[in-house]
Amino acid sequence: MDLKEYLETSAAQVDAALDGFLPSAKQRPAKIHEAMRYSLFAGGKRLRPVLALAAAEACGGEIELAMPAACAVELMHTYSLVHDDLPCMDDDDLRRGRPTCHKVFGEGMAVLTGDALLTEAFLILSETAPTARYPLSAFIAEFAITGGSTKLIGGQVLDLEGEGRELKKAELVRIHEAKTAALLTSSLRLGAMSANATPAKLDAVTDFGYHLGLAFQVIDDILDVTQTTEVLGKTAGKDEAVAKATYPAILGLDKARKEAARLTKKAMESLEPLGGKGSRLREIAAYLLDREY
Amino acid sequence: MDLKEYLETSAAQVDAALDGFLPSAKQRPAKIHEAMRYSLFAGGKRLRPVLALAAAEACGGEIELAMPAACAVELMHTYSLVHDDLPCMDDDDLRRGRPTCHKVFGEGMAVLTGDALLTEAFLILSETAPTARYPLSAFIAEFAITGGSTKLIGGQVLDLEGEGRELKKAELVRIHEAKTAALLTSSLRLGAMSANATPAKLDAVTDFGYHLGLAFQVIDDILDVTQTTEVLGKTAGKDEAVAKATYPAILGLDKARKEAARLTKKAMESLEPLGGKGSRLREIAAYLLDREY
Repeated sequence: MDLKEYLETSAAQVDAALDGFLPSAKQRPAKIHEAMRYSLFAGGKRLRPVLALAAAEACGGEIELAMPAACAVELMHTYSLVHDDLPCMDDDDLRRGRPTCHKVFGEGMAVLTGDALLTEAFLILSETAPTARYPLSAFIAEFAITGGSTKLIGGQVLDLEGEGRELKKAELVRIHEAKTAALLTSSLRLGAMSANATPAKLDAVTDFGYHLGLAFQVIDDILDVTQTTEVLGKTAGKDEAVAKATYPAILGLDKARKEAARLTKKAMESLEPLGGKGSRLREIAAYLLDREY
Repeated sequence: MDLKEYLETSAAQVDAALDGFLPSAKQRPAKIHEAMRYSLFAGGKRLRPVLALAAAEACGGEIELAMPAACAVELMHTYSLVHDDLPCMDDDDLRRGRPTCHKVFGEGMAVLTGDALLTEAFLILSETAPTARYPLSAFIAEFAITGGSTKLIGGQVLDLEGEGRELKKAELVRIHEAKTAALLTSSLRLGAMSANATPAKLDAVTDFGYHLGLAFQVIDDILDVTQTTEVLGKTAGKDEAVAKATYPAILGLDKARKEAARLTKKAMESLEPLGGKGSRLREIAAYLLDREY
């Protein structure tokens, strides 16, 4: 299977699983279930769950066993977007090419929709089958720490605090580690854990995720400058408009591109302990770097 | 130990455990950890965790084993208050006698603080020791379903939708079941589960929680009418000001009081399968009913 086909097939499998896990849109109260599905089924690329599934395969596991974790990370990602888009946070009107949750359902409902997606994520994750090396508590702790006040949420706090002020590169890296790299890394780790990965393999996907996550965010920052709103599906040029610190703003476009390539290369090198089984993850890293051209 | 002493001792034990579980206020980013602690350590009565501990004892268990669940339910309760108080929801300035989280830290930070408390709740719950009858997945599922889109969050959705419009008693009961009774019941159930309760005992505390939760909400509605802001620690008369449907509004004060007494009696009767060990829970129910006099 070539990469494009693999990505499409995996995303479709994730969509089907999410549809099965989530309460139906008819369940009462209907409005919250509509809003959850509106935010979740908006044509996302499902990068994080696909990474979870690919990491499971790379560690010799099966994608079915990684599916609850894969769905959980997508729910956590979506909840964080719904809350980050709120008027009291980044105030965005457009996401994945459609009006944001609060534009359609109102602010109060958007807060509750994010809350519900986050809560549902833990419910789904609790269906993970423990392995010899990893009890369920390891999955829940991994996921909760990643989503918590020192990582995903902490990164958004730093982001809010940094708006409109000049950041040094080290500060920017810290935000990206917390906001982006942490959840990408955790997606890979949870997938590997579902495959009962050895410590050496778990370390390998962890290093891969860290560098891939930073590369991903650098590329995202570049695309915000170089692409149109139509292509992005979210408001282009937003970072500059709110004087947000980004890689292109701090380093310039050219150096930012080089930084993305350097990080991607480091990510690929991290996969060595996986041998030939790491090739799909390497392909995904190369593909993400190529997004910008 | 008399009830007053028991409640104070238990609340102090919960406070100490919460303090140990939560990241320190100095951990970076400092602001989110400050805000989490501000909201959590505001002199709450710790009713839900005390019920969890009391249920564990009533089922022959130990309070140490129920402590992670007890702390988790208090975090979930606090997160729901922080989000419900937001301007885009109930818009409250005062909670537990102090300015609400968003008044002190800003709206964006209050959204993130609620998110962080909810996420931390699952992390703490994952430290629960599984028992012969209840694996960790049973604790996580119980907690996530209670906090989810059909119960705690669903109740707030119904509450938002019902504002300013006349509700029938059945609609009001449905909101209270979801918003209040569900988490009170779940507190008791998680405590009982940590004690490896038999199905009959688990059913008993479930019935108890359901009726106690409804009674508790009726009494809360009554207090909103009859007490001052100073006594309540939150804005008194708020329900009437926003034309919120409440028991006193629908039934009148006198009938609402009778309803609270009836529900409390039913709650106490549910405890029969626990025999003499249910006496502490019975005392707590009587004490809650007496709050209004």
